[in-house]
Amino acid sequence: MRHISLAALVACLALVAAFAGASEEPPGTSEATGDCLMCHRQVTPAAVADWEKSAHAKTTMSRALGKKKIESKVSADVAPEKLGEVSVGCAECHVAGGEPRKGDFDHNGFSVRLVVTPADCARCHPAEADEYSMNIMSRAHGNLANNPLYMDLANNINATMAFEDGKLKTKPPNGPTSAESCFSCHGTALTVTGSATRDTDLGEMEFPVFSGWPNDGVGRVNPDGSMGSCSPCHPRHAFSMAQARSPYACANCHKGPDVPAFKVYMVSKHGALYSGSGDGWDMAAVPWTAGEDFTAPTCAACHISLVAKGDGEVVQKRTHRMNDRLSLRLFGPVYAVPHPKSPDTSAIVNKDGQPLPATLGGELASEHLIGRDEMKKRRAAMRSVCQSCHGEGWVGGHFERLDNTVAETNDSTRAASAMLGEGWKQGLAAGPPASIFDEPFERMWVEHWLFYANSVRFASAMAGADYGVFADGRFQMTSNLLRMEAALVGGAGKSGDGGGREKKAGGQ
Amino acid sequence: MRHISLAALVACLALVAAFAGASEEPPGTSEATGDCLMCHRQVTPAAVADWEKSAHAKTTMSRALGKKKIESKVSADVAPEKLGEVSVGCAECHVAGGEPRKGDFDHNGFSVRLVVTPADCARCHPAEADEYSMNIMSRAHGNLANNPLYMDLANNINATMAFEDGKLKTKPPNGPTSAESCFSCHGTALTVTGSATRDTDLGEMEFPVFSGWPNDGVGRVNPDGSMGSCSPCHPRHAFSMAQARSPYACANCHKGPDVPAFKVYMVSKHGALYSGSGDGWDMAAVPWTAGEDFTAPTCAACHISLVAKGDGEVVQKRTHRMNDRLSLRLFGPVYAVPHPKSPDTSAIVNKDGQPLPATLGGELASEHLIGRDEMKKRRAAMRSVCQSCHGEGWVGGHFERLDNTVAETNDSTRAASAMLGEGWKQGLAAGPPASIFDEPFERMWVEHWLFYANSVRFASAMAGADYGVFADGRFQMTSNLLRMEAALVGGAGKSGDGGGREKKAGGQ
Amino acid sequence: MRHISLAALVACLALVAAFAGASEEPPGTSEATGDCLMCHRQVTPAAVADWEKSAHAKTTMSRALGKKKIESKVSADVAPEKLGEVSVGCAECHVAGGEPRKGDFDHNGFSVRLVVTPADCARCHPAEADEYSMNIMSRAHGNLANNPLYMDLANNINATMAFEDGKLKTKPPNGPTSAESCFSCHGTALTVTGSATRDTDLGEMEFPVFSGWPNDGVGRVNPDGSMGSCSPCHPRHAFSMAQARSPYACANCHKGPDVPAFKVYMVSKHGALYSGSGDGWDMAAVPWTAGEDFTAPTCAACHISLVAKGDGEVVQKRTHRMNDRLSLRLFGPVYAVPHPKSPDTSAIVNKDGQPLPATLGGELASEHLIGRDEMKKRRAAMRSVCQSCHGEGWVGGHFERLDNTVAETNDSTRAASAMLGEGWKQGLAAGPPASIFDEPFERMWVEHWLFYANSVRFASAMAGADYGVFADGRFQMTSNLLRMEAALVGGAGKSGDGGGREKKAGGQ
Repeated sequence: MRHISLAALVACLALVAAFAGASEEPPGTSEATGDCLMCHRQVTPAAVADWEKSAHAKTTMSRALGKKKIESKVSADVAPEKLGEVSVGCAECHVAGGEPRKGDFDHNGFSVRLVVTPADCARCHPAEADEYSMNIMSRAHGNLANNPLYMDLANNINATMAFEDGKLKTKPPNGPTSAESCFSCHGTALTVTGSATRDTDLGEMEFPVFSGWPNDGVGRVNPDGSMGSCSPCHPRHAFSMAQARSPYACANCHKGPDVPAFKVYMVSKHGALYSGSGDGWDMAAVPWTAGEDFTAPTCAACHISLVAKGDGEVVQKRTHRMNDRLSLRLFGPVYAVPHPKSPDTSAIVNKDGQPLPATLGGELASEHLIGRDEMKKRRAAMRSVCQSCHGEGWVGGHFERLDNTVAETNDSTRAASAMLGEGWKQGLAAGPPASIFDEPFERMWVEHWLFYANSVRFASAMAGADYGVFADGRFQMTSNLLRMEAALVGGAGKSGDGGGREKKAGGQ
Repeated sequence: MRHISLAALVACLALVAAFAGASEEPPGTSEATGDCLMCHRQVTPAAVADWEKSAHAKTTMSRALGKKKIESKVSADVAPEKLGEVSVGCAECHVAGGEPRKGDFDHNGFSVRLVVTPADCARCHPAEADEYSMNIMSRAHGNLANNPLYMDLANNINATMAFEDGKLKTKPPNGPTSAESCFSCHGTALTVTGSATRDTDLGEMEFPVFSGWPNDGVGRVNPDGSMGSCSPCHPRHAFSMAQARSPYACANCHKGPDVPAFKVYMVSKHGALYSGSGDGWDMAAVPWTAGEDFTAPTCAACHISLVAKGDGEVVQKRTHRMNDRLSLRLFGPVYAVPHPKSPDTSAIVNKDGQPLPATLGGELASEHLIGRDEMKKRRAAMRSVCQSCHGEGWVGGHFERLDNTVAETNDSTRAASAMLGEGWKQGLAAGPPASIFDEPFERMWVEHWLFYANSVRFASAMAGADYGVFADGRFQMTSNLLRMEAALVGGAGKSGDGGGREKKAGGQ
Repeated sequence: MRHISLAALVACLALVAAFAGASEEPPGTSEATGDCLMCHRQVTPAAVADWEKSAHAKTTMSRALGKKKIESKVSADVAPEKLGEVSVGCAECHVAGGEPRKGDFDHNGFSVRLVVTPADCARCHPAEADEYSMNIMSRAHGNLANNPLYMDLANNINATMAFEDGKLKTKPPNGPTSAESCFSCHGTALTVTGSATRDTDLGEMEFPVFSGWPNDGVGRVNPDGSMGSCSPCHPRHAFSMAQARSPYACANCHKGPDVPAFKVYMVSKHGALYSGSGDGWDMAAVPWTAGEDFTAPTCAACHISLVAKGDGEVVQKRTHRMNDRLSLRLFGPVYAVPHPKSPDTSAIVNKDGQPLPATLGGELASEHLIGRDEMKKRRAAMRSVCQSCHGEGWVGGHFERLDNTVAETNDSTRAASAMLGEGWKQGLAAGPPASIFDEPFERMWVEHWLFYANSVRFASAMAGADYGVFADGRFQMTSNLLRMEAALVGGAGKSGDGGGREKKAGGQ
């Protein structure tokens, strides 16, 4: 029994080596982080444990900088001060460096900041932070808050209502309601409103108080003036790239009927493969090799990730300006439009003076939108990812359909808007200057473009047909138009004498 | 090649040890279970195979009792008779012990019971069974069946309808329909209605027949008078704790628009982390250490599980009275209310004599509901789980928003109820003593509180904003109120002359 | 340290053996496939990488034929020409063999076909292709395209609408819209419309152009006249059986409210177990042993797979004629009916001359439907799968409820159809010969059977109660009937003076 075969020995050694490789000597923490951990292992133990499993806890900037460029997750050329040889721990992010900032506070001898922002992450990941600042998502707060038309929609949706004297009295939503509804995803504006003394295990302590807290929206306005947050997609305190590549990371904000990207993905073949066979994929590989590391793309593969071929050739470079591969803006505005030039869409004004990239009749505010060449370039970037798996004929056919669907849904929205105008004339609802979002007939119009046309377009763009037909799709879109028509006086259908219930009522 | 390195040897031995540890010598089955298995390996092979992989098949009460208290899944102090040294097999649960019970029947020489109940499980898990009996879920059958108002709702929902002489004729649902709809989750009442002879592989045999069978509802009324079932969450025949900790265990009954807990969870950051990164979590660890075993809570972590810190300190003890950490009852009644004192809510009577914890106007039946101190205690219990990961400011801000949302949605329901009353006056629908659930206008009111207000509250409670806005959320809630108003005669909106389609019709 | 224990050695050797087993010597590719790979590793690298991980790349027909029958995935008795000793690579499927076919084209010296069809797969998998050709899914294109009534529904759903002169003008959908909506799942008809020259990395090349491309629908009409495609369920280029067994494979087309099989599955206990505990299941085992390889069935287990007991006894043989275990057709037609005899349902004519298996009043076109004996046989086949885990009483009770629900939902549809007829009489909508799908009142009728009755039946069939009640279930079904009644003139409810908003309006 002392005679072990050569093969067995080699295999054992290979196993041992594999094990050894997985447990590279962890780096030390900084002294400051060590101090944090002394209490926080007890106070927020799960946050600490989560971090301990993170790449941040297991590496240093020096090690990261030693990797091949294509395998690197950091974009800084040199390690920030004091960050070269220690793990990226509590203090490296939370102990205020650089300019003092609103909300920094003294905490057991350290100047601590609760709210870590893209500006903090930028010390090691400057390219990502920079790109993200040019990404429309980073402006999601202002793109809503500074757009009076959309804020009127938001306030009507979230309104508090009371029935008094035979009528609904409407009050705009209060701060907490706004913060947990639209601005939950769009991001709140965090402002320091004071400080509070709290009884902790270690005695009384003083903490800053922020209005709009908690929030982890993609366009959060931070105390340092930076916009956005990295943790909606790379959640605290592991900040995992694998998690951000999961479609579930995007589902947080992209699942409702207004922007059903996740739901459409899940009924696409891509989603079926991810869900049915994704267990064996390598979600953490850098670069991310199509076919080898993953069989079908997740959201990140198409929109963000550094995607490579098996021989290392780059298919698409990583970008956190996610519209780099998007020629069209499919959702958000009333009409699908070429992508806005600036991430700040609140500055857009259309011909009718509205803060929208097209008039209600569908005429584009072209000067605010990217032109043909840029659209072509972005489409080509997206196609290059598709063509990792699909032939040119397949991909070409796919995008022809998308362009057709964008045109058809926009036409359909034109019909809805025309009926809205007619309804205002007939007194079915009060149009501008009154709110255009606070009456049932107007809500039908909102459902048309915000739910149905969006769903149909996403279903086309991501090949998830189910959501293009019966799940908030073309069935609901045409039914809604028919009901709008029936509500109009004289809007008779084919039957001459009023085509339906509402028509009957409306036509009397 | 005979010189193996020390490290390699150690690693190999560690692997070997790990393997060995996983295969502790399985205990023997009892003689009776052995008899069961002889036939049932052939007759219900998958049920047997499932059990063979269970903890029940791999351990004994003696071994379980030998564990440290905090690591133990059993709460009995001593092993029940005959259960000490054998695996927990077929006979240990299905061969009737103790008092004879309706439905026990002779089966090849054994007195067998088909329906295993919490009373059976209580022999090893008495604390869990006891807690569960005080859990509102265990009374789910009677809380519906004995509440005439809710039974009227159920019967109208499930009614059979025929169109005769120009009118809909409504018949209440028959037994099978009721059993597979509301009582599928609420639990049926199992009663022995006779017996049947069946041709089996082993000749003719006699079996008892139960009305209400099959059923696995959380409030099933069992032949022994016990209420509930353990297998809705710990499904037969593995009875896995890991499965019960999966959010999918709860989704069975908590996914529809009336109680969209699962859907809200899945659009929360918690759900995103579970779905995107949960593969590596240890769902079976006892105690369950936040941050180490799991990164984000599942339903069980917040509501049920024994949650510990890394140093073994208990954050929250395990409880199967799931309302121990719930100060509020967010869904079920028309208004969100402080949690009922008793799990039997059918005994509640409000000021207006209705079996509801608040009047239709929203006035609380406070004597049936927990008071401020108990609410505070329960809220504190829940907060302690949150604070494993989140700071106090984050947690405080979260619950401030929830309390605000509870107040606002209740106000909103007050408006809907007031319009319902006005509609009854105007003859839009016939109010009490007629059913309040059988006309379109009344159904709008039901949708208000049962779907929209519930969704908004869950979205707030579990931070899944998508379901608070566009997915059965505030958009639908305010649209519904506007449509109800429009249906009322004279319920003009801002426009003076009727604000919408229905308003137009109604106001003529 | 040279003294290794016997156990350690044995364990190491076992590990080594396990490793060795996993890496059986891969077969060589054919010369032609080698030529393909030379360019395509670069041109469509992910498709190649995906294939490299497939069973096709790792085995040969000779090896497959050497397996025990019950473990085999191929049904050919002998290897097709040239396919015995090489892996099943690009050329084996894409380089045209047999009769020349429309769309074959010269590609670097090979006669290549882009569109691989069931006829190609049939060379190794003839039984599966043959069964699938008798499966109703293989005719999904024609069953829609050749049914004028359903095409009218489809065209109304997908119509383009414009509002002109106070009316909606409706245009039928164009080709791309039809292809990406209904025919996305039903399958397009692929026809060669010409050829295109494309600039590739290797110079200009000529490719055929297909109308209807891309498409991967289950009933695709192929250039060789064959119907269907294997890749909707076994996606390119891994063609994995494990993927096809995942419920997500079916979700692509069976998730919307018209056929919510996937959603119902996910709220059933089966779905909860798959989602919560499926990680440890062996989705690739052949045969598939209930309880051992999987704890709860996926779609495939009940409808398609070769399911066995632990002792190797076959519970149900594999079938790709998926209706072999289905006695009823629950969705698709207006009424649930005994399963059609022929997969080509477009040939069905009912008593009223409509291409439907029942009249609008619910009278069966029995001559086109399977009889009692065949229904019984199919039900027995399905029950045998259930009884792997469940006792006969459980299974019997389950199917009694299903039969009851089929009868009750059909009754309910009768009521809706009767009200539709009454509405036509009253002029609420224009009935035949005008379209019966293009007015709001008619859409309510469509929603009744297409969404609500279907959902209720699926919820019953697959024990996913949530979708039978509040999620497009009985609540919505009865609400919809009440609203239809209210729209009818004189259709007063119990209150005598008009039961609701719409009733009020309608009754004026």
